Amino acid sequence: MKTRIISGLIMAPLLVILYFRGIPLAIAAFLIGAVGIYELFEGFKKIEIHPNIFVAEGMLILLYLLHFLMPGRLACTMLWTVLAIVTSALSIFAIDKHKLEDALATLLGMIYVGLLSYHMVLIDETSYGIMVWMVVIVAFGTDIAAYFTGYFLGKHKLCPNLSPKKTVEGALGGVIGATVLGIIFGLIFKIQIFPQIILMSIIGSVMSQLGDLTASAFKRKMGIKDYGNLIPGHGGILDRFDSVLFAAPAVYYYLQLAIAK
Amino acid sequence: MKTRIISGLIMAPLLVILYFRGIPLAIAAFLIGAVGIYELFEGFKKIEIHPNIFVAEGMLILLYLLHFLMPGRLACTMLWTVLAIVTSALSIFAIDKHKLEDALATLLGMIYVGLLSYHMVLIDETSYGIMVWMVVIVAFGTDIAAYFTGYFLGKHKLCPNLSPKKTVEGALGGVIGATVLGIIFGLIFKIQIFPQIILMSIIGSVMSQLGDLTASAFKRKMGIKDYGNLIPGHGGILDRFDSVLFAAPAVYYYLQLAIAK
Repeated sequence: MKTRIISGLIMAPLLVILYFRGIPLAIAAFLIGAVGIYELFEGFKKIEIHPNIFVAEGMLILLYLLHFLMPGRLACTMLWTVLAIVTSALSIFAIDKHKLEDALATLLGMIYVGLLSYHMVLIDETSYGIMVWMVVIVAFGTDIAAYFTGYFLGKHKLCPNLSPKKTVEGALGGVIGATVLGIIFGLIFKIQIFPQIILMSIIGSVMSQLGDLTASAFKRKMGIKDYGNLIPGHGGILDRFDSVLFAAPAVYYYLQLAIAK
Repeated sequence: MKTRIISGLIMAPLLVILYFRGIPLAIAAFLIGAVGIYELFEGFKKIEIHPNIFVAEGMLILLYLLHFLMPGRLACTMLWTVLAIVTSALSIFAIDKHKLEDALATLLGMIYVGLLSYHMVLIDETSYGIMVWMVVIVAFGTDIAAYFTGYFLGKHKLCPNLSPKKTVEGALGGVIGATVLGIIFGLIFKIQIFPQIILMSIIGSVMSQLGDLTASAFKRKMGIKDYGNLIPGHGGILDRFDSVLFAAPAVYYYLQLAIAK
């Protein structure tokens, strides 16, 4: 429990970045992407898969260059996704040196870490930029509420093979906790509570938990406990932001498809 | 050589589909995606990777449902791409039964085959729908021109490890042939020849050849010669459409970013 509270405090600088948004947020998202790709690829090396870090980090730089050169063009983000497929294939054209799995892992790094974390920047760019807060509130709110609910009330295991400590009660507590925090956020910023904030919180919280489980599944398969040790004793960037990776797109597409005209 | 000409003739029904566009084109693109995913996954099985075909084909259906329910919304296509990442991760949550590679291959099937072939439908949906012809002209024009140029003039190997028969002369002949065909197309349909058609032909032809080489790289790594035997003696759907997979996005994003206002 102490671990969770301490790493909560370590996240404080994040609040400053969320307050300013714009360039500081883009830099933070870029750095999370860059370090996250590195951590993921180190994990792949443990199982003899060797993705191409130069291709992946180069493509991440291109993603943010496109963002600043042609803001607001979703077609650029789509083009980038297609280029991620193309460049990851190109990365094994020196056919004798690489496995097919190397290309697959390179692609995963670019779109799982790079593209998903970039959704924070995409949210900021909409007319609902304030909703970047929603992502963080829902992702970390879910994490904390699920932990405490599970700790005090947890009885039924959620998925013992994948993540042995998680309980059904904790998962539900996470959704409820995130929704309560979302409603408080909605009240403060005078955002329509029902159905928008409530639905967004529920979807965001479920996605956060799937993000957490996805990271667990990847780490289990790589045979590692944590992605890194960037925050000593508290794991790597990907351990901290695994739920944000899935929560950010959830909030973004909810805004795009259910709210934006 | 006979093979190429015969399979050229077999492609004739495609011309009818391209003439009508709209629903027939969407159905054709969907079927190419569905069969292509199946062929790719059969290839993966040869190297003990077992992607989840139900997830991939289900997601392909979702892609076309979204297309008809919310036409013209690039955000839907982006959302679908994110869901492809999420569902491929979910597909290994039964952690003891699956390898990490299974999830990676599932993801590749969805976005390499499903998303890339869907770009034919995306082109059709723009105000330049006629440009679906450009994709086919450039992709098959490159293939045929490269083959004959290489056959008669080929001296320098392009990438002997990856595709032993390809030559530098053939690659250049492919680009020139595609550009000539593109210009004829542009003249017939009164489309601005320079720089639009010329640039689009060159980029499309290079991408076609990269698409061909990518399919070669994948097949080499899977230890197979062809993806299938759907057209007896002429390989599978993916063998026929490997260059279209890369040419279609090239034409689409060229239209979106260089021509559309």
